[in-house]
Amino acid sequence: MSYKVGVIRGDGIGPEIVAEALKVLDKVAEKYNEKFDYTDILLGGASIDATGKPLTEEALETAKSCDAVLMGSIGGNTTTSPWYKLPANLRPEAGLLAIRKGLGLFANMRPAYLYEELKDACPLREDIIGDGFDLVVMRELTGGLYFGERKTFEEDGVTKAVDTLTYSEEEIRRIAVRGFDIAMKRRKKVTSVDKANVLDSSRLWRKVVNEVAQDYPEVELEHMLVDNCAMQLVRDPKQFDVILTENMFGDILSDEASMVTGSIGMLSSASLKEGSFGLYEPSHGSAPDIAGQNIANPIATILSASMLLRYSFNMDEAADAVDHAVKQVLKDGYRTVDIMSEGMTKVGCKEMGTLIAERI
Amino acid sequence: MSYKVGVIRGDGIGPEIVAEALKVLDKVAEKYNEKFDYTDILLGGASIDATGKPLTEEALETAKSCDAVLMGSIGGNTTTSPWYKLPANLRPEAGLLAIRKGLGLFANMRPAYLYEELKDACPLREDIIGDGFDLVVMRELTGGLYFGERKTFEEDGVTKAVDTLTYSEEEIRRIAVRGFDIAMKRRKKVTSVDKANVLDSSRLWRKVVNEVAQDYPEVELEHMLVDNCAMQLVRDPKQFDVILTENMFGDILSDEASMVTGSIGMLSSASLKEGSFGLYEPSHGSAPDIAGQNIANPIATILSASMLLRYSFNMDEAADAVDHAVKQVLKDGYRTVDIMSEGMTKVGCKEMGTLIAERI
Ligand SMILES: CC(C)[C@H](C(=O)O)[C@@H](O)C(=O)O
Ligand SMILES: CC(C)[C@H](C(=O)O)[C@@H](O)C(=O)O
Repeated sequence: MSYKVGVIRGDGIGPEIVAEALKVLDKVAEKYNEKFDYTDILLGGASIDATGKPLTEEALETAKSCDAVLMGSIGGNTTTSPWYKLPANLRPEAGLLAIRKGLGLFANMRPAYLYEELKDACPLREDIIGDGFDLVVMRELTGGLYFGERKTFEEDGVTKAVDTLTYSEEEIRRIAVRGFDIAMKRRKKVTSVDKANVLDSSRLWRKVVNEVAQDYPEVELEHMLVDNCAMQLVRDPKQFDVILTENMFGDILSDEASMVTGSIGMLSSASLKEGSFGLYEPSHGSAPDIAGQNIANPIATILSASMLLRYSFNMDEAADAVDHAVKQVLKDGYRTVDIMSEGMTKVGCKEMGTLIAERI
Repeated sequence: MSYKVGVIRGDGIGPEIVAEALKVLDKVAEKYNEKFDYTDILLGGASIDATGKPLTEEALETAKSCDAVLMGSIGGNTTTSPWYKLPANLRPEAGLLAIRKGLGLFANMRPAYLYEELKDACPLREDIIGDGFDLVVMRELTGGLYFGERKTFEEDGVTKAVDTLTYSEEEIRRIAVRGFDIAMKRRKKVTSVDKANVLDSSRLWRKVVNEVAQDYPEVELEHMLVDNCAMQLVRDPKQFDVILTENMFGDILSDEASMVTGSIGMLSSASLKEGSFGLYEPSHGSAPDIAGQNIANPIATILSASMLLRYSFNMDEAADAVDHAVKQVLKDGYRTVDIMSEGMTKVGCKEMGTLIAERI
């Protein structure tokens, strides 16, 4: 069978890290006798440079025609890049939001876990880390403040700005179902995060999550306020399995969780909808300052490719092989500069990709 | 001169910790020949029990008539307390929001710093802590999602909930001015936190903060996205001096920052407006599970009383004496159970209050 894979190389280090992920996918194709047809899709700064827009209709249509999309990272230096002289709706990030919405990718899954080999990079004290932690933030991705109506206007000579946070039962239900489904494959615990002591949308969130929980009697559900969750991620990340939350809280908490691991260059993410289609991208940014120097860490993108194999193509065996190859390379002592430590062998972006591909 | 001090004893451990703060204020009055007239004000659960409402008009008027208000903590166990069977607008927290708004307390100042003596409680690795850190979150407290219009309604048989995030130029300007003023008394750096790549309110926030910065040429200003700030607080809290942000982001980030210190039982806060009036409260919650056992840590409330002396009554010398007494007690090896460590002397809430008062 042949799969159509959309490829968004993106900005900054995007093209380099994507190239290494494709190297790994090629190796998977060879070994497991699969065929991946790659189709380039423009998004973000690269799209602005080529078309004037961060996402064209055409690019969105191409993405829709794919079986899955692999993405690097998009955006540039917000103070020096000309992209950030453009109005907000024409900047690179607007393209990212538009493709998420346009593809209907309502479920964003961001695992955050500690690699035994990279324990030293974790900013937390050793006794807090213990045997490590392994959590997933399941973030709603196409609703809330990100996609509500907004406006800036003058009233009696004073400028005001308004953003709107809206959720419907249905939007909450479908992400909650995803969260519980993932929990069933993991340690069967869901922590639903909201601000129900203040927000109507959070009270609806809590109500619907409680309803969905009825269908998952095996899953332990707890509710946590977002301010408390921001504390608990630092105090004791081990307590979490699946954190289920709305768009803005998920943005903040997933980044906090990934920093708590200390190895953000290792963390992948998947943006999903119903069915098997998904968009896969590293959790880190486009790091324009180190672009083109062959020093970026391609592992998060390679692990995103592994998620693509697992969630979109149902190729668990191949995905396991990729994950295992990554672990093996770390065990063998190879490190890109961002995760380098004493006694290890420093390698560049390309070498890291090759080393991982070789181990598949 | 005589000052009228409103006293909100609150719920859970509130009454105990407030009693110790009053013990310290009494000692200050004696030593510095001042007079504090205390007036009890009902808020939260205690007010619900007595009046059916979390804040009465009468209580708000009393608070307005005071020169400053000292508060314990409010609220109960959200699953077992009958207060949480009430509709949201009648729960303890609604009283807290109502008094903030009713008194016009738009500027919430939450210091987060590491006590040399309590370094071991910090969840971060020692090399990240270094010589410690000392930051203040300046949070807008009467605008944004907390006080925007909200509603829950049915549309075509589907329930929807909407919250609104509104900011006006003026609301942003007055909190920004407060932030820069505080920075001038500290290390002269402001990190303004927003989500300007998504929200209109954040873009207005950034614009107004830039304008205000013109009047403070000595202060270094940087802008940071909220997701990045959530990461940086874990990665390197030393980089921050004053974090200036809107209400919801401030709620999340100030709690994260206080947990990063590891000693939330030590952290005070001030809610201010123009002029000298303020409401002072510990950053921690009402801990209903340990209420009435004489084991709560009163230090955050005692330090809130110190902030009251400093910011509302301009008694810097007395405030310094309180802060110093707290440090001295820690140096002398006394600890409540939450900050207890090997070789120290464990004391109860009352004893801690007495020990601090004695050192003034
Ligand atoms: C670039 C930005 C709009 C985006 C978001 O906030 O969703 C990013 O932070 C992310 O988390 O993928
Ligand atoms: C109790 C709650 C409404 C409140 C808030 O969110 O402001 C609390 O978390 C705080 O930070 O003081």
